[in-house]
Amino acid sequence: MGPHDPHRTDERPHVERTEDELIAAIRKVLSGAGPEVVVPVGDDAAVVRPGSGDLVLTTDAMVEGAHFRLGQTSARDLGYKAIAVNLSDIAAMAGSPRYALCALSLSDAVDAAWVMELFGGMREACDEYACTLVGGNLARGAEVTVAVTLTGEVAPGRAVRRSGARVGDTLVVTGTLGAAAAGVRVADRPTTWSAEERRAVARLFRPTPRVGEAQVLARHGATAMIDVSDGLTLDLSRLCVASQVGVRLVVDRVPVDPAATRDEALGGGEDYELLVTLPSEDAVDAARAELREAFRVPLTAIGVVVAEGLVVVAEDGTERSLDPQGWDHFSARQG
Amino acid sequence: MGPHDPHRTDERPHVERTEDELIAAIRKVLSGAGPEVVVPVGDDAAVVRPGSGDLVLTTDAMVEGAHFRLGQTSARDLGYKAIAVNLSDIAAMAGSPRYALCALSLSDAVDAAWVMELFGGMREACDEYACTLVGGNLARGAEVTVAVTLTGEVAPGRAVRRSGARVGDTLVVTGTLGAAAAGVRVADRPTTWSAEERRAVARLFRPTPRVGEAQVLARHGATAMIDVSDGLTLDLSRLCVASQVGVRLVVDRVPVDPAATRDEALGGGEDYELLVTLPSEDAVDAARAELREAFRVPLTAIGVVVAEGLVVVAEDGTERSLDPQGWDHFSARQG
Repeated sequence: MGPHDPHRTDERPHVERTEDELIAAIRKVLSGAGPEVVVPVGDDAAVVRPGSGDLVLTTDAMVEGAHFRLGQTSARDLGYKAIAVNLSDIAAMAGSPRYALCALSLSDAVDAAWVMELFGGMREACDEYACTLVGGNLARGAEVTVAVTLTGEVAPGRAVRRSGARVGDTLVVTGTLGAAAAGVRVADRPTTWSAEERRAVARLFRPTPRVGEAQVLARHGATAMIDVSDGLTLDLSRLCVASQVGVRLVVDRVPVDPAATRDEALGGGEDYELLVTLPSEDAVDAARAELREAFRVPLTAIGVVVAEGLVVVAEDGTERSLDPQGWDHFSARQG
Repeated sequence: MGPHDPHRTDERPHVERTEDELIAAIRKVLSGAGPEVVVPVGDDAAVVRPGSGDLVLTTDAMVEGAHFRLGQTSARDLGYKAIAVNLSDIAAMAGSPRYALCALSLSDAVDAAWVMELFGGMREACDEYACTLVGGNLARGAEVTVAVTLTGEVAPGRAVRRSGARVGDTLVVTGTLGAAAAGVRVADRPTTWSAEERRAVARLFRPTPRVGEAQVLARHGATAMIDVSDGLTLDLSRLCVASQVGVRLVVDRVPVDPAATRDEALGGGEDYELLVTLPSEDAVDAARAELREAFRVPLTAIGVVVAEGLVVVAEDGTERSLDPQGWDHFSARQG
């Protein structure tokens, strides 16, 4: 809006720098332009040399109130997580992350130091996964929103979609599930945390995107892949819908995080593990060995792809139909 | 957040569809996947075949309260503008737009029909400029935020930066300035608008990004280019800082929109015209003729690049130093 804009109701310079000064300060914490960055942060748009592969594109926002509270999450963790959740989406296509952009909306509740910490956290995540923050935008709003877009690269035609699962494939999941939900449960508890709870809280605030793990799984023939962002059962049902298949989920095999309950493992979101279908037992064994060796990450077979129906199989052989529970951002429907 | 998330305070399903249902509805208004779209909307990330040029990346958000009011702007116009302001940034690098992503945060004040209209407006802008919306994300918040990321393409090494202006270059601007500021001034006025005011309001709510115009200017040797989003004098000072040059601005030559005052033309933002330096009078004449012929858009020489100093020259020869006024999103500093 121009200076005649009647929309603005607050003229106080709460972030005590001009936009240009703040951007100049932010640029100092950003990673330097690599050889493939033709025009870095600071022009109308960034310009980069693309790789030879297909271009992967994703966007995901962290919204105050919905995804975080300022009093609970540090700016540094928030910045890290805003990048990490997007890295997880690139990973779920078997892509390699390349460039990040951030459209940031700031409220009066945060100051310039907070913003610098936020960018510090974003840079930390970018550095760990070899991607570069090349662009951004600052605006003011009533709440803080960190909208990140990430580009990635994947060998032509080698992206792993949600839609490729075939009858007979084995359903596997990386790591353990329910940690983030357990973290939410205990984060505000004033008592001392156990070691497992401490790890769960850490996973909530600083999730680990499975970027390298996804590429191992793709190499072993993954037919479909999705990251578990909204809960195992909801994301599993999405994979099944996209692939037009069903699944028999052996519920007792689901790897429940030590800090979590089984319900948290089945319905809790934000674990950012990978849910994958593999074409054979041999592929599962080979992928499991490589993931253990390279990343110390377990891979667990939890079901089998069938023609139709989402069925949960208990250890005693009883079956019930799977109710897609998990975090739906709109209906807030719970199982 | 998972279903155990203590952050949420509002469980009402105001947008009366689940996220998956809303996304399915949105996909129907989106343009179909082109031959270069390998994985369209609906997977963890989109996958596209990149072109052979450099990749241009930009992001810009429309934030409720800061950039629009729900009661004043229609969802369709808002969607159109959210894409258009990003197209303008791609244009300012002399790029061709390719793919769009949108991270959308919705409040209780809007319903599913509003969201569909918003996407309708986004699609309209995308269709006009031959780009494709390939990805998005939905979240809930206290206010509506439409964060768009756009990719574009430019021949390798041919992006036009802000930093290339050289002493002796002619400073030119497309179209007229001040229309959006005039639109802001009259938009809420209950009386009848003149034809010029009506056009100014239309330019405020549906700006025209100068995508083709920028490519003509680049072909005629543009040494530096920036879009006038925050006001002529502020964006001019940015171009000068980036190029490490000064400018003598002949203030009476600035093309003031018929609905605007001269102050609005100098300081008003959101016109999305192009401010460009060209290397010779011949280049100016040739570019002007081509822009008139192809786009019916005027090109006006408004100054000359000098070694240092931002100086405003009046018709009577008096000089004063230029005070960068315009819309600074943080300090709200006005000239």
